[in-house]
Amino acid sequence: MTRLPTVDDLRAAHARIRPYIHRTPTFTSRTIDELVGATVTFKGENLQRGGAFKIRGALNAVLSLNEAQAAAGVATHSSGNHGAALAIAAGIRGIPAYIVVPVNAPAVKRAAIVGYGASIIDCEATVAAREAKLADVVARTGAHFVPPYDDVCIVAGAGTAALELFEQVPDLEQIWVPVGGGGLASGCAVAVQGSGVSVIAAEPAAADDAYRSLASGCVQPMQNPQTIADGLRTPLGRINFEILSRSHVTVALASEAAIIAATRLFFERLKLVVEPSGAVPLAALLEAPSARKARRIGAIISGGNVDLEALLQAFKNAPAN
Amino acid sequence: MTRLPTVDDLRAAHARIRPYIHRTPTFTSRTIDELVGATVTFKGENLQRGGAFKIRGALNAVLSLNEAQAAAGVATHSSGNHGAALAIAAGIRGIPAYIVVPVNAPAVKRAAIVGYGASIIDCEATVAAREAKLADVVARTGAHFVPPYDDVCIVAGAGTAALELFEQVPDLEQIWVPVGGGGLASGCAVAVQGSGVSVIAAEPAAADDAYRSLASGCVQPMQNPQTIADGLRTPLGRINFEILSRSHVTVALASEAAIIAATRLFFERLKLVVEPSGAVPLAALLEAPSARKARRIGAIISGGNVDLEALLQAFKNAPAN
Repeated sequence: MTRLPTVDDLRAAHARIRPYIHRTPTFTSRTIDELVGATVTFKGENLQRGGAFKIRGALNAVLSLNEAQAAAGVATHSSGNHGAALAIAAGIRGIPAYIVVPVNAPAVKRAAIVGYGASIIDCEATVAAREAKLADVVARTGAHFVPPYDDVCIVAGAGTAALELFEQVPDLEQIWVPVGGGGLASGCAVAVQGSGVSVIAAEPAAADDAYRSLASGCVQPMQNPQTIADGLRTPLGRINFEILSRSHVTVALASEAAIIAATRLFFERLKLVVEPSGAVPLAALLEAPSARKARRIGAIISGGNVDLEALLQAFKNAPAN
Repeated sequence: MTRLPTVDDLRAAHARIRPYIHRTPTFTSRTIDELVGATVTFKGENLQRGGAFKIRGALNAVLSLNEAQAAAGVATHSSGNHGAALAIAAGIRGIPAYIVVPVNAPAVKRAAIVGYGASIIDCEATVAAREAKLADVVARTGAHFVPPYDDVCIVAGAGTAALELFEQVPDLEQIWVPVGGGGLASGCAVAVQGSGVSVIAAEPAAADDAYRSLASGCVQPMQNPQTIADGLRTPLGRINFEILSRSHVTVALASEAAIIAATRLFFERLKLVVEPSGAVPLAALLEAPSARKARRIGAIISGGNVDLEALLQAFKNAPAN
């Protein structure tokens, strides 16, 4: 059994990555406080380097490698924020990064990864093809595989977002975070250990494997997730499940309509560009008030990498606020 | 001749309004620094109450009234950010606000003004009709007219944005601000007096009355402005011209294509919703580098009240970055 990360691991990760990342600002809105019925402080990881919290874990992993490990570079598979984050992290350390990307990934995501200096290796858009291609790259280059979330270094890095939020707003009672693979949610669960603060993991109802996993006590498969929150379509990781389960983290579900409405609130009221995954905590706060047992709430906006056209299409298909 | 505001007036205004406004955060972007060739710190007044810097002037004006003046309320004409700002300011003091709004103003702007508790008075969409209706309202209610920019209190309030920016980033050499009526630009020109910092007023080339006014030495009329920067279609005010002229402020012009590209950079890179008027300083920085005689630049994002549909339409009609 893998050793699970502790608060000390998070502190060490923060010391390691802090010189290279943004200390992202926090935001509040009277309108949203009135809608939710509590004071909500949002931490804007959409303003983080690479447009998402992912750099925290990727950079912690890259900076934790010894010289010999680092020399051959790092590799991963990703069509999203983790690939870009690992590309940036490798650039910071000055080592190669190999990102296995499905052929159907959006051109803009490919361009970002290349722009950060990484090499792209194409693969067919299946899990089997992706894993085979990654194994091939690792065998050929000797690169170190950095997984997107099911990893102690990644969890410890992600949890630094919650450490910072506590420094910025010390009197929070609850933290709401999105849950997909569970890197951020489990990192935050570690961050609050011993503090009396509770973590609520917000998940699309249309991709509710974390909800089912925690309810049943063992990891449940993801079943054909049909959610606009593209960052949360991944199945829950093993380490992540272990941490969430032991920490008694509650899952709150959000409908697609609520996720779109929350994304729109960020755009119109907070003037922030938030990807739908990052709006899931607000969506759940608006839709699942029974989980809100606090008056001073923190919520992490996980990312802001969204295509304007896709955003507008989502708004058109949903009723206005 | 009206007495022009001084730095002391700005400090007094700041002390007056500070308890009620947001100290808006600042933002930087490596991508933008590379494009511009200097370090640019943006002050996000799009995140200000009401979504624009306008609350600073409106609130300073409202809080400067004595009890007798305030009792009858305040009035103005506006279809944009100033009307919403005056509505918020009047609400803070607990006095009535009457906003004369042209019948063709967008429903969303009307809804915002009503939502802040002000009364809307409709008028035909001409300058003559607007002024007649405002005079009528003032005569009927005894309300105090708060003009949108050509006013000492408004200028002093607007200039507090620059005072805050100096507190946040003390070593700036230049400040770039949008210029329309000139409230913000002239306020910033006052704020830098005696500091050695210069102010560059950024203006759409398609609405270049400030440029022509300062070049000719007297206020030039606005001629049928056809710019997407709807907040900058207003003619330059008298007091504002006086201050800009005496302060030897330079005007830098921006094309419509550059304004749209800059708005898109804010959306995609800084994850900020910025209205086109607020993107004009960045547009001018990208397009008129000859005015950039500094390595540490500040720029004020004046507002973020933009319709997503309109934004997308603008992006579609322009080439991508």
